[in-house]
Amino acid sequence: MKIYGDIQSGNCYKVKLLCALLGIEHQWVPVDILAGDTAAAEFLSKNPNGKIPLLELDDGRCLSESNAILNYLAYGSELLPTDPFLLAKVQQWQFFEQYSHEPFIAVARFIAKYLGLPEERRADFESKQQGGHKALTVMETQLGKTPYLTGDKLTTADIALYGYTHVAHEGGFDLSHYPAIQSWLGSIAGHPGYIAMA
Amino acid sequence: MKIYGDIQSGNCYKVKLLCALLGIEHQWVPVDILAGDTAAAEFLSKNPNGKIPLLELDDGRCLSESNAILNYLAYGSELLPTDPFLLAKVQQWQFFEQYSHEPFIAVARFIAKYLGLPEERRADFESKQQGGHKALTVMETQLGKTPYLTGDKLTTADIALYGYTHVAHEGGFDLSHYPAIQSWLGSIAGHPGYIAMA
Ligand SMILES: N[C@@H](CCC(=O)N[C@@H](CS)C(=O)NCC(=O)O)C(=O)O
Ligand SMILES: N[C@@H](CCC(=O)N[C@@H](CS)C(=O)NCC(=O)O)C(=O)O
Repeated sequence: MKIYGDIQSGNCYKVKLLCALLGIEHQWVPVDILAGDTAAAEFLSKNPNGKIPLLELDDGRCLSESNAILNYLAYGSELLPTDPFLLAKVQQWQFFEQYSHEPFIAVARFIAKYLGLPEERRADFESKQQGGHKALTVMETQLGKTPYLTGDKLTTADIALYGYTHVAHEGGFDLSHYPAIQSWLGSIAGHPGYIAMA
Repeated sequence: MKIYGDIQSGNCYKVKLLCALLGIEHQWVPVDILAGDTAAAEFLSKNPNGKIPLLELDDGRCLSESNAILNYLAYGSELLPTDPFLLAKVQQWQFFEQYSHEPFIAVARFIAKYLGLPEERRADFESKQQGGHKALTVMETQLGKTPYLTGDKLTTADIALYGYTHVAHEGGFDLSHYPAIQSWLGSIAGHPGYIAMA
């Protein structure tokens, strides 16, 4: 199986981290968005939405969307619950990540780290702070009650949220106000097989 | 079971439509966002992210995020595949909806229909058009190949995308350029049990 991605992207790193934790062998195909790789006809034939990460199975079938890939690869493992309500809770946190977390924290990080916070993007950067802190507060509330987002066990919900939360400081978010998040980040980094982003 | 929502919201209507198609009995609790209902302490104790729709089970457990609710309620029914790859495809389309479709089409509709397209929001409205058409093009590509988004059968992926696509014209998107989407909309509306938004 091939995974198309860029390891500096939290959405791609999530998938890489899951493969490391579960020991899933794969071929990593580096993709350079800025060089136009995701806009090339061949890539678009695999993912018409033109985004990474992308999973390509040996029979040619393709799957996009980082969190869908996580749940597919974790199917049958200890990282994906089988109880229907817990499985739904995993998805709840993943949809929360895509809608209420990533668009603030990942975008603020992109503007600060990759664009170097130019003056003409400062208002945009500032506009992401409130939503980002709201998302972190929602996580802090849950992680003050349970060690992982859906309870006692690490799941693909935690991997999904770990992607951009552990580099949130690069988007201007000071995590020292979120002790439960900090301790959760430490637990995840302590798992056997863990690999860092860089 | 209780479902907290506002039927004019595509995210809430999705859940209502699924319940109608599957004949799931529930108590619908109308929530008025503009009156501050989702910011009230009691609501926040059920969903710290302060958003509708919200599902509350009889034992008090709560589940948020429209697409997680869809998959939970459809578990074990013909609307949710059991094959792991197909199940992942359902989720792929649902994450696509939340990340690449809803933030353009639902937001443009909100500005046009609910705010009446005031001059100071026109630039914002215009900025949603390109992304919305890109998402519709991705759907059109798939629906030119298969009758439903993941293949031959209606799934919760279709219900998720139906929510805002069928009212996309209210956000300024002319669907006459998308014949496969139009025929798909017609198929869904023809399903036994179907209910309209209004
Ligand atoms: N919802 C998608 C988001 C993926 C995404 O935004 N990928 C970025 C890199 S982090 C990308 O490919 N951007 C290129 C583009 O949109 O043209 C996911 O979770 O996989
Ligand atoms: N990702 C969420 C989005 C839900 C959402 O944005 N709900 C809106 C109504 S359509 C809401 O409750 N807004 C109130 C707020 O954000 O304060 C889902 O799919 O359920």
